[in-house]
Amino acid sequence: MSDKTSSQLWTGRFTEATDAFVEQFTASEHFDRRLYQHDIRGSIAHARMLTKVGVLTEDERDAIIKGLEEILVEIERGDFAWLPELEDVHMNIEKRLTDRIGDAGKKLHTGRSRNDQVATDIRLYLRDSIALIRQELIRFQKGLVELAEREADTIMPGFTHLQVAQPITFGHHMLAWYEMLVRDQGRLEDCAKRMNIMPLGSAALAGTSFPIDRDFTAAELGFDAPSNNSLDAVSDRDFAIEFSAAAAITLTHLSRMAEEMIIWASPLTGFIELPDRFCTGSSIMPQKKNPDVAEIVRGKTARVNGQLMALLTLMKSQPLAYNRDNQEDKEPLFDTIDTLRNCLHAFADMVPALTVNRKTTYEAARKGFATATDLADYLVRKGVPFRDAHEIVGRSVRYGVEQGKDLSEMSLEELRQFSDVIAADVHDVLTLEGSVGARDHFGGTAPAQVRLQVKRAKERLNQLA
Amino acid sequence: MSDKTSSQLWTGRFTEATDAFVEQFTASEHFDRRLYQHDIRGSIAHARMLTKVGVLTEDERDAIIKGLEEILVEIERGDFAWLPELEDVHMNIEKRLTDRIGDAGKKLHTGRSRNDQVATDIRLYLRDSIALIRQELIRFQKGLVELAEREADTIMPGFTHLQVAQPITFGHHMLAWYEMLVRDQGRLEDCAKRMNIMPLGSAALAGTSFPIDRDFTAAELGFDAPSNNSLDAVSDRDFAIEFSAAAAITLTHLSRMAEEMIIWASPLTGFIELPDRFCTGSSIMPQKKNPDVAEIVRGKTARVNGQLMALLTLMKSQPLAYNRDNQEDKEPLFDTIDTLRNCLHAFADMVPALTVNRKTTYEAARKGFATATDLADYLVRKGVPFRDAHEIVGRSVRYGVEQGKDLSEMSLEELRQFSDVIAADVHDVLTLEGSVGARDHFGGTAPAQVRLQVKRAKERLNQLA
Amino acid sequence: MSDKTSSQLWTGRFTEATDAFVEQFTASEHFDRRLYQHDIRGSIAHARMLTKVGVLTEDERDAIIKGLEEILVEIERGDFAWLPELEDVHMNIEKRLTDRIGDAGKKLHTGRSRNDQVATDIRLYLRDSIALIRQELIRFQKGLVELAEREADTIMPGFTHLQVAQPITFGHHMLAWYEMLVRDQGRLEDCAKRMNIMPLGSAALAGTSFPIDRDFTAAELGFDAPSNNSLDAVSDRDFAIEFSAAAAITLTHLSRMAEEMIIWASPLTGFIELPDRFCTGSSIMPQKKNPDVAEIVRGKTARVNGQLMALLTLMKSQPLAYNRDNQEDKEPLFDTIDTLRNCLHAFADMVPALTVNRKTTYEAARKGFATATDLADYLVRKGVPFRDAHEIVGRSVRYGVEQGKDLSEMSLEELRQFSDVIAADVHDVLTLEGSVGARDHFGGTAPAQVRLQVKRAKERLNQLA
Amino acid sequence: MSDKTSSQLWTGRFTEATDAFVEQFTASEHFDRRLYQHDIRGSIAHARMLTKVGVLTEDERDAIIKGLEEILVEIERGDFAWLPELEDVHMNIEKRLTDRIGDAGKKLHTGRSRNDQVATDIRLYLRDSIALIRQELIRFQKGLVELAEREADTIMPGFTHLQVAQPITFGHHMLAWYEMLVRDQGRLEDCAKRMNIMPLGSAALAGTSFPIDRDFTAAELGFDAPSNNSLDAVSDRDFAIEFSAAAAITLTHLSRMAEEMIIWASPLTGFIELPDRFCTGSSIMPQKKNPDVAEIVRGKTARVNGQLMALLTLMKSQPLAYNRDNQEDKEPLFDTIDTLRNCLHAFADMVPALTVNRKTTYEAARKGFATATDLADYLVRKGVPFRDAHEIVGRSVRYGVEQGKDLSEMSLEELRQFSDVIAADVHDVLTLEGSVGARDHFGGTAPAQVRLQVKRAKERLNQLA
Repeated sequence: MSDKTSSQLWTGRFTEATDAFVEQFTASEHFDRRLYQHDIRGSIAHARMLTKVGVLTEDERDAIIKGLEEILVEIERGDFAWLPELEDVHMNIEKRLTDRIGDAGKKLHTGRSRNDQVATDIRLYLRDSIALIRQELIRFQKGLVELAEREADTIMPGFTHLQVAQPITFGHHMLAWYEMLVRDQGRLEDCAKRMNIMPLGSAALAGTSFPIDRDFTAAELGFDAPSNNSLDAVSDRDFAIEFSAAAAITLTHLSRMAEEMIIWASPLTGFIELPDRFCTGSSIMPQKKNPDVAEIVRGKTARVNGQLMALLTLMKSQPLAYNRDNQEDKEPLFDTIDTLRNCLHAFADMVPALTVNRKTTYEAARKGFATATDLADYLVRKGVPFRDAHEIVGRSVRYGVEQGKDLSEMSLEELRQFSDVIAADVHDVLTLEGSVGARDHFGGTAPAQVRLQVKRAKERLNQLA
Repeated sequence: MSDKTSSQLWTGRFTEATDAFVEQFTASEHFDRRLYQHDIRGSIAHARMLTKVGVLTEDERDAIIKGLEEILVEIERGDFAWLPELEDVHMNIEKRLTDRIGDAGKKLHTGRSRNDQVATDIRLYLRDSIALIRQELIRFQKGLVELAEREADTIMPGFTHLQVAQPITFGHHMLAWYEMLVRDQGRLEDCAKRMNIMPLGSAALAGTSFPIDRDFTAAELGFDAPSNNSLDAVSDRDFAIEFSAAAAITLTHLSRMAEEMIIWASPLTGFIELPDRFCTGSSIMPQKKNPDVAEIVRGKTARVNGQLMALLTLMKSQPLAYNRDNQEDKEPLFDTIDTLRNCLHAFADMVPALTVNRKTTYEAARKGFATATDLADYLVRKGVPFRDAHEIVGRSVRYGVEQGKDLSEMSLEELRQFSDVIAADVHDVLTLEGSVGARDHFGGTAPAQVRLQVKRAKERLNQLA
Repeated sequence: MSDKTSSQLWTGRFTEATDAFVEQFTASEHFDRRLYQHDIRGSIAHARMLTKVGVLTEDERDAIIKGLEEILVEIERGDFAWLPELEDVHMNIEKRLTDRIGDAGKKLHTGRSRNDQVATDIRLYLRDSIALIRQELIRFQKGLVELAEREADTIMPGFTHLQVAQPITFGHHMLAWYEMLVRDQGRLEDCAKRMNIMPLGSAALAGTSFPIDRDFTAAELGFDAPSNNSLDAVSDRDFAIEFSAAAAITLTHLSRMAEEMIIWASPLTGFIELPDRFCTGSSIMPQKKNPDVAEIVRGKTARVNGQLMALLTLMKSQPLAYNRDNQEDKEPLFDTIDTLRNCLHAFADMVPALTVNRKTTYEAARKGFATATDLADYLVRKGVPFRDAHEIVGRSVRYGVEQGKDLSEMSLEELRQFSDVIAADVHDVLTLEGSVGARDHFGGTAPAQVRLQVKRAKERLNQLA
Repeated sequence: MSDKTSSQLWTGRFTEATDAFVEQFTASEHFDRRLYQHDIRGSIAHARMLTKVGVLTEDERDAIIKGLEEILVEIERGDFAWLPELEDVHMNIEKRLTDRIGDAGKKLHTGRSRNDQVATDIRLYLRDSIALIRQELIRFQKGLVELAEREADTIMPGFTHLQVAQPITFGHHMLAWYEMLVRDQGRLEDCAKRMNIMPLGSAALAGTSFPIDRDFTAAELGFDAPSNNSLDAVSDRDFAIEFSAAAAITLTHLSRMAEEMIIWASPLTGFIELPDRFCTGSSIMPQKKNPDVAEIVRGKTARVNGQLMALLTLMKSQPLAYNRDNQEDKEPLFDTIDTLRNCLHAFADMVPALTVNRKTTYEAARKGFATATDLADYLVRKGVPFRDAHEIVGRSVRYGVEQGKDLSEMSLEELRQFSDVIAADVHDVLTLEGSVGARDHFGGTAPAQVRLQVKRAKERLNQLA
């Protein structure tokens, strides 16, 4: 995007035609045509405003609107002849309009520039895109909450350092994922709100000498307000970076879920089964069932991080106002929108459809002395200072490793070797059920807490819908 | 940060001491000691809560609080002996507490883990840091608004593509910078709000079997609420990435201001003078006055982008819950906090102290046919369609280039060569004052609009103070 | 890319068809079809090798080769029906081959897997791409050397901190750009050499049980050797990252050239003219001539940095051997190849065609006390210690600023105010010609040195051609 | 780093002292003091050269060298008083020299600038650093080769998509890691070679008017040649980016090894034991043995990627020659050097000390139909086309999943259900030993091939030592 026009239009000032390679190298029509709908929407609002302030007649306005609406149909039908030599979506549409309706078309660009036009188009486009992404985010959240409810009592090992740490419930784990997505949604909504300010009327950089009514246009286009400063409005792309950062954080979350599902679907653990329709086989190893969707989502995190870095690098140190560098803002942004939406769609479909091998997760939790913390807490409750309790448990575990016995498998006598405050009631806290059940405070892994959080989440999601 | 303890404390389970290089390689005390104040604040709140729920006696609590407050004084006096072999800030303080007050100190860690402790400490620290950064942001905004007011009538060339485009006012340009900072502030405030949720009580990952009261601790520490999910609370660092992205966008804005000031302070333009106290000379070229502060701020954008990328890469694909990788979250975050605060401080000091060479900026605007757009608009108002008007102006400019004359220097006869609708009133629109004055709509560059925006900005800033 | 096959082929193991969205989400055919030529080249070599070791008959081989060559023609004619449901370029071509020639086609995949096949294809593709990029690099170098020769005597200001520092020659500046490109070429050549190792024969990850002859295939395909380790060969993409880093450094160099040309083409300096065919005008400001090509190249640096970050993020922490994440390696790589080649092409065309406004650059060098260093050196040669000489010059410059006089404009008496060692011969060193001429050592800016370096560069370039 | 001097020295030109915050904000002495040794080495060579060309007397030279050597001792003893107000390492040392030896010290800076001085210092420093890193790389390679030899016959599952794919040997896997490091070493060596060019003599940007002998200085300092172009020599930091990219690729490799070791050390697999001295325990879960070193190395990949991005962002679009932004090059570079060296050191110590639970890896390979490919290959050798063989094996595996039987556990009759070409000899290929043994070609996983590669690796490493 830039403030230049097609080569035909500025030959006066120039003594030489544009180089053919340069024409292709600098054209953006092949990717910015995606903005056609929002470009037309913006032009219609602009035409209405120009009529209101007396720059266009009502007839001119009606001809413009009719012409643009017909062009919209042409494009959507696939009948529109996109011309790279017209550089971008704006010039393609304007040229076509002038061809169709004559002089009135030439007047449409009064009081605006491609600089404010494209800045408006992108915001409109991104606003709609965020709304669609938000729907997928919410759908995925709903799926997770249902899965959490289904597996509220399912016991699995909780890991730190990929070592078995303590038993947790599968439902609790799914709600951890849900919480990540709630914050992701918050970031997107903040971004959408902050960017809903209209650049139109800033013209090239300084505003225009025509008597425009920016409040009218802003209202027509659903913006919260016109921008306060014309230079800023055409120069900045911080909203695109903010969106991109929000997307990168969301993908980072999805990559963590992906990593866990890949580990859980591996025969090394066998914790879950992913439906066949989300997996692929191998051309050379027919026994395999590859978690491709999770791997691709994990891989796509890379792409989104890269696009964020591209946008930050792009804007660094650019003097105001518009520079042609900014044409490079669109591809990273569009790619990020598509990637985020597709990845959320894929997980919203797949994740709630996984099945947990409950017996396997239970047995895995039984290994690795997962209730050692419970023994330590037990000792503390019997009056042993925390750090001393830790030492006693450490020695018990060492004994267990040597004997090949879990803590719950040791007799009272064996346990009492390490501390004589241990009594018969110790075995209540050494079971997996006892361990998860005991963490029954707000935010804890106990099934009751999982159900409470499921209830709260459902209420929240119902209010959103 | 991690859930491990010092080598002395887990020798029971282990058969071999930690390798000396490994001890140094894995220690974090040299950078996480910066959290000492917030660690102590968190421990005091935790001790009060443990007392409320009956885990500690009032005497134990009082001994802990007194001990911690004395340690705080020791640290701030520089008397505290930091020991790398105790790994991190938490163990250093806890060990010192136990040395001072004995068994009560050992009980402090009841119902928590280093995982939720550090997650809490960082949030407290970042919350305070954002408050300090926000002050610098506001101070800088105030300085810009005052400068804008001072230079509301000052005419300078507005650039696109670093070509002279149209005349603008210097005040308008300063307000473009102000608008960027307003959005930057919004992002920081959103981040601060979203992260003000308390992890404490999540323990290692699953919660604790002690009867803790998380609402009490959250209120003590000024958090809006305890976290909903213990796994999520100890695992995620999205708030640090969000802060880091907000910082990177702010630095990107500062880098753009820096670039402009460097160009404006160059003898190539001579638009502004930077006060000597913000510049340096040269050891070999004594005539130079280098805009070092602007250059360093521009350079530091790189650093902040790098730290953002580091945090994103760090978290990518980590399975829940805590992994030791996360120890690497602190240095990027601390560095970003310092850099952002210092750069804002430097610009808040320097920018409002610049002086504009008004005559130079005025003369520069007179070059380069900066009022060509005004001529085009004039023609449109006389009934010429926009695209045709553009063609007429193009030919006029070409003539001007050949004759070495600006549009405002051409006689009426010369101008009428290109269109006979041009009349004597044309010269009103071809002056710089006429040009900027005509852009008198909301967001435009006209001095009156600059003053309106200054007034709005002052009202907003007064409400913040 | 992955080791899976099309849904039809693994239904046996699976009980459910692939989800339609998943099929589209995971397909790579729309971007990896670009490898078709290299895929066919690899398959032909593989077929020859299988025949040599007795796995295929000569008839089967001939049928395969003929079939593949016909498919190549089909693709290049645009007659090939690419099917997304066949997932990727490999399966599309193999399926078409089997349709054409029957059972022999099915045997082609013996002793290989898509994992080693795609790893081979990418290397072949990248090898050819580097060769093409290298040609553009050399062409651009040649253009710079010619420009340097043409402007060997042209004096311009040399900048540090965008402050005028010392006079330099334009030719010297162009040779600085040339030197950057020489190192860029070295990095590409090192990369090409290091990656010219053949993965084929690694099969899925472990090698194959067929009696393959990898030296034969390597020789057929122009590889320096077969890979030493099958796991490594299918898992690693370090060569793609290395290429990408080399590209990012080259683009960083181009971005610096772009920045300078944008400044030099601005009316602020007027140092150079860019040919119209590389510029565009403005739809609203007909007087402008925008250096779009330089701006777009500067902007595209962002893109290439982003793709590098994407590739690094992608590979981070992936366990061996192949994971589906790696499908995401191709788009960043292809985009980087195209961008690098196009940007070099554009600059190789444009830069040598720029014209220098020699009078303007000369006058600009006269401002800003650019020969202050020469005065200091003069004083040192007269016996004044360097740091004292610096002080004397500093005072002279301050006087000059106050009086509005350059050093060369001061009378002997004026200069002798600051040091009585100054004599009549001082004016020889205070001219621009004297200053640049004095830097007549290897690597210095003197015209004689520029000509020497031009000569050396031409010799080097002639040897390359 | 910059070409400015301490505030005292340029008061003449300036009318105002440097702001206190600015002095601290712009100082680099706290991090660039690390260059002291190389700065002194460079100054000594410079002094010798100045004497050779007659600028210094022999007495002055000797005084300078003696003074610098004493300063070196002071610094290494910790007796040197670093002063931030002297800005950087260069001015600190020069000032101290002048204090010690008087006027001769002031002459040392003749014919150079801080711009070429620092560019030289960094290259000397990085050259030495690469040599140290290379040693760790080679030591790690040796450890891997020994481990590979020890485990040449150890069978483990090979994974793709974290699904069990085919049996491989542990030794083969270690050699895959070795191959990565060989290429990493190549990249470092190429970088070291390309950057071994001397900037000294470029002075601020244009060279100097003194009759310097750059070949002499280059030889003194072990550079391959003086730089060809003075502007380029002081402006570019591409060598630092190249090093940083090489480091990022190496860390990416280490992160992959880390990921695998973390999975292998998890109780989920139990494939390996890491020595206790490289692990830590937990303060709350005493049963755990956390692979902290692997996790921290994995985490540090993030840091190195971030520093690479910082350096690329830093240099983007900087006009020549030196800008103060470049002061920001040192911290990322130093941090990358330290991180790379430490991570290699840690892994060179730890990895060869791991022990493989051979029985566990063997049993894991027996699960998951790991020899399915062998059955397919068997069928192909019996004349079944590859794609048909795949289909047959697919059905066999499906049967195995339903019956809970591995392929090797099926009777001949069971197998012949799927194809009647299957005969009694099939069981030879269905064993793990048969499978790995069959991959006995160059690069394959067979123990014989592992031993061959071990032999080749040892020969290579012996030549390096």
